[in-house]
Amino acid sequence: MSLLDRLKSSGDIKSFSYQELPELCSEIRELLIDTLSKKGGHLSSNLGAVELTVALHRVFSPPKDKIIFDVGHQSYTHKILTGRKDEFETLRERNGLSGFPKRSESDCDVFDSGHASTSISAGLGMVTARDLQNEDYKVISVIGDGALTGGLAYEAMNNAGSLKSNFVIVLNDNGMSISENVGGLSRQLSSLRTSSGYTNLKAQVQTSLEKIPVYGEKLVAQIRKTKSGIKQLVIPGMIFEQMGIMYLGPVDGSNIKQMENVFKNAARFKGCVLVHVITKKGKGFIPAERHPSRFHGADAFDRETGLPLSTKNPSYTDIFSTVIRKLGQRDDKVCCITAAMMDGTGLKRFRNLFPERFFDVGIAEEHAVTFAAGLSLSGMKPFVCVYSSFLQRAYDEILMDVCLQDLHVVFCIDRAGVVGHDGPTHHGLFDLSYLSSMPNIIILSPKNKWELSDMLKYALAETHPVAVRYPRGEACTLFKEKRQKIEKGRTEVIEDTREGDDGVVILALGSMVENAYHALDLLKKDNIGALLINARFVKPIDTALLDSVSSSTLIVTIEDNVITNGFGSKAGDYLLDIGYKGDLLKLAFPDEFVPQGTVAELYEENSLSPEGIYRAIKEKVISDGKGKA
Amino acid sequence: MSLLDRLKSSGDIKSFSYQELPELCSEIRELLIDTLSKKGGHLSSNLGAVELTVALHRVFSPPKDKIIFDVGHQSYTHKILTGRKDEFETLRERNGLSGFPKRSESDCDVFDSGHASTSISAGLGMVTARDLQNEDYKVISVIGDGALTGGLAYEAMNNAGSLKSNFVIVLNDNGMSISENVGGLSRQLSSLRTSSGYTNLKAQVQTSLEKIPVYGEKLVAQIRKTKSGIKQLVIPGMIFEQMGIMYLGPVDGSNIKQMENVFKNAARFKGCVLVHVITKKGKGFIPAERHPSRFHGADAFDRETGLPLSTKNPSYTDIFSTVIRKLGQRDDKVCCITAAMMDGTGLKRFRNLFPERFFDVGIAEEHAVTFAAGLSLSGMKPFVCVYSSFLQRAYDEILMDVCLQDLHVVFCIDRAGVVGHDGPTHHGLFDLSYLSSMPNIIILSPKNKWELSDMLKYALAETHPVAVRYPRGEACTLFKEKRQKIEKGRTEVIEDTREGDDGVVILALGSMVENAYHALDLLKKDNIGALLINARFVKPIDTALLDSVSSSTLIVTIEDNVITNGFGSKAGDYLLDIGYKGDLLKLAFPDEFVPQGTVAELYEENSLSPEGIYRAIKEKVISDGKGKA
Repeated sequence: MSLLDRLKSSGDIKSFSYQELPELCSEIRELLIDTLSKKGGHLSSNLGAVELTVALHRVFSPPKDKIIFDVGHQSYTHKILTGRKDEFETLRERNGLSGFPKRSESDCDVFDSGHASTSISAGLGMVTARDLQNEDYKVISVIGDGALTGGLAYEAMNNAGSLKSNFVIVLNDNGMSISENVGGLSRQLSSLRTSSGYTNLKAQVQTSLEKIPVYGEKLVAQIRKTKSGIKQLVIPGMIFEQMGIMYLGPVDGSNIKQMENVFKNAARFKGCVLVHVITKKGKGFIPAERHPSRFHGADAFDRETGLPLSTKNPSYTDIFSTVIRKLGQRDDKVCCITAAMMDGTGLKRFRNLFPERFFDVGIAEEHAVTFAAGLSLSGMKPFVCVYSSFLQRAYDEILMDVCLQDLHVVFCIDRAGVVGHDGPTHHGLFDLSYLSSMPNIIILSPKNKWELSDMLKYALAETHPVAVRYPRGEACTLFKEKRQKIEKGRTEVIEDTREGDDGVVILALGSMVENAYHALDLLKKDNIGALLINARFVKPIDTALLDSVSSSTLIVTIEDNVITNGFGSKAGDYLLDIGYKGDLLKLAFPDEFVPQGTVAELYEENSLSPEGIYRAIKEKVISDGKGKA
Repeated sequence: MSLLDRLKSSGDIKSFSYQELPELCSEIRELLIDTLSKKGGHLSSNLGAVELTVALHRVFSPPKDKIIFDVGHQSYTHKILTGRKDEFETLRERNGLSGFPKRSESDCDVFDSGHASTSISAGLGMVTARDLQNEDYKVISVIGDGALTGGLAYEAMNNAGSLKSNFVIVLNDNGMSISENVGGLSRQLSSLRTSSGYTNLKAQVQTSLEKIPVYGEKLVAQIRKTKSGIKQLVIPGMIFEQMGIMYLGPVDGSNIKQMENVFKNAARFKGCVLVHVITKKGKGFIPAERHPSRFHGADAFDRETGLPLSTKNPSYTDIFSTVIRKLGQRDDKVCCITAAMMDGTGLKRFRNLFPERFFDVGIAEEHAVTFAAGLSLSGMKPFVCVYSSFLQRAYDEILMDVCLQDLHVVFCIDRAGVVGHDGPTHHGLFDLSYLSSMPNIIILSPKNKWELSDMLKYALAETHPVAVRYPRGEACTLFKEKRQKIEKGRTEVIEDTREGDDGVVILALGSMVENAYHALDLLKKDNIGALLINARFVKPIDTALLDSVSSSTLIVTIEDNVITNGFGSKAGDYLLDIGYKGDLLKLAFPDEFVPQGTVAELYEENSLSPEGIYRAIKEKVISDGKGKA
């Protein structure tokens, strides 16, 4: 029987002796590596946080105590410790365990996270509610050093500093966010990591903290009473102290006993305490230790070598990577900005060639956008490269700093549509909806790899804000011969299986063109003819095309966005305006949060697979008695 | 001839002697007070920044040098100094000078601001572009201490700290944002304000800075070389220093000569420098010095007493203020969160009664929302009270932290629709568009003061996210007798002037109900009958009502939101789904940024005034030959 088998439910970890813990942590790591080599997932961050999570669970008692994991991709050990070990093999599957905390899974998960920098705000809310209701439990927010770059974390820390009762923030510092960390704060943390405080920690903890509450509080009070200058000599982490947050650390994140001691002390403090824990991303799996960012969110890989199991055709990200490098060569005004997504958005080669025109601002999407506005105003041509779901953070900046001034900023929106296993916080299903109501912006989506290239060139030549959105995964290589020049607001005809004008008109957007094309074949077998149009532009929409098909009896729109305010809505708005009397069938994701699953599963469930599109159109044609060719 | 008359264009300020400056500043203040007493505007912040702006313009040379005003409501003196003195009387009028920087007005305005905390990001973009293009000018971002609370400013500072060439940030510190400041950073600034550095500034500047570049740079280098602890003893403002930003100050914001000296030194530094200037909000006008927040964004007032010229009927804000107080009394779980808008959102009385359940988080809308999510998860009933335009900052948090978890958080969205003189950055024209694609959220808007009360009670009784949006200005007091119970997704009939079922069906939202009601009278005179419906809910929309009118020949929607993705789009989506064959006329603001002007002017220009609605409907009826009763 392995030690892991003793982990039946939350709290069982407290029964382990210190002697047993190293072996248990090894078993947990083994489970993580084994499962993730098959399922994919966030390996590096979870391997780094095993001991930290064990220490937290030995000091605190979920579900009574609330542990909030920022971003949440490091919560696998937490799941294993709270009764979900046996389900762990379903990780990231449709209807399986989520790769992020989910309240619906366990009462030990208290906040459904996914985006960075939220944990301090959420934790502060819980602490405040607890105090208002005179309840008695601990709230612990576990945040990475990368997420600390986000403005939201700062807003929350600034607020937490005035707290009069206990709130523990654990800074899980592995020296990197998704990519390397950047900025002044990062340098500051890095100097703390190597400060004398770290090496002398044991002595420091004993003299200044272990005696809490007997002598400890007095000591802290005394330190606080001394002149602010002197205090800064004594206590590291002044950036936190200056915001009113008590700083403890740095603590060795591989030493469970030491972490337990510091957590116990932190929990007794009246006010907000930050415990600075030094961990190592990828710890215990050599390939992940060496290439932590490659294993940030990895697909299935070879257990021994760490290499990906399947070698894939080029993704849209790969295509983007090649094209942006060429654009950078051709035009020295082109510059690229990302927010801790250099690898993910394919900018590494651009960075290597043009380091002075590459800017990774850290997890700081808002700043990325307004910074780009400044660059554009002073003569550069900035490309902001961010995942769809994370760009949501910069809604106001896109609208007010870019669109209001009608600036030439290009948004390269990767991971649009469904991303698969990462689920609802990572799907890029809202971009068409939130961008399309912004005046001045131009929104495009490519049907295949060549069109992405053409659209990026078009975007560079534009003078307005432009958003090019494309999904995760392999780029479509069909329709190589369909490469009509990109003209603003104009669609492209892909195929016409109608006889005459009578039949279905299908407007498919981006990667839905391929699925619609396969559906066309299926429809043809049922003698249903259709005209397939590649929509290309969501804004401005091709009104000339819509005018030309306005006598149709059935128009179908297909998009990988939520149905509300998406491409279909735009088409519908215009069709109503021109008095269209036929039917409009909008295929899109529903007005709800889409769960995790493979992309194919999610398409199939939502009538966006070739079969699904075929069935939905056929059903509509039959129910209407229309559209036969 | 007054001194002011010598200010013809940018740079003229440099010709004034130090002896003349106090008199000139008095004349500028007189012009500000006189103009704003008639036009309204941001009096307090502008009065506080007169000397600061004069000093900036004596050291720097716009348009070559770029001065970016954060928020921009303090840029009036800048406008007076850059050739716009004679137009100043048109301030905030339709087609007059904007109350914010506008690139279209002057090449001395380099960034169209309006929202807080953007200036450092934008400035950093300009600095970077300058350096990449080997250009030679200065970039100066002027930011208030209030705006420094915003996460965006922190993200930008974190990035600016690694800069190797000059960028000047001027911290215009008047000790308050719109309301009082909050949080750890504010306490930190406040201790700096009273630090010995301030009183001994003259000596400090002479010894450590005035000698730059001869000795000064060496000195700074020497200070930087010493152990970090020692440095902290010597230099105040360590929170900035720790981010890699050189701190200079504090400087007396009434002493132009002193500011000039420090600005000159700051401009020579290689890297990012922050100059901390202490100013006084409302300076020179006693009522504004005493009540700076009342004069933050004031309407026209009496020149002598400072009292508002017109006493008005209660606004929606006033109604909200009364109702939320009652709800707080009735239910001790009710708590209110605002982001530096306590007065503006009407929360002062709630704060006075329930200080422990009131939270002003500072200019930090993102944190406000995620903090509310935490409160809700732990049993409280949070009301987030923020202006429509500023809530845009929290798009991602509303979607991912509130709606994804389907939490009972109530958004009380004030200043929805057009706000009038503050113009495009302050109009609340996008909320229906960006909120309506979020799953789980319920969106309402009241037709009059009683309905706002009923909707807030409904929102408290709900269990999902709820947004209640209402405009700036007087609450409608018509339709007192129309007070049908609020039921989820149900409309209310206001008036039916049709004979039979044949005629126009009008669905009006919120404050548009009143305008549509008046239009009904006008239509009646032309024998055009109509059914007027109070829409109430944007989401979920009243599908039963739409079903019941689906045989109409003309349906009209009226809303004070942009037309794209608004209420009319929602109605259209459903009508197309059910095969509606009539016409849909959507009255709304167009898909562009709406300029400043009176609310009445903006309604009139966009067919949303009673007359405008009447004309638009009549035209449609005549062109279609339909709808006659």
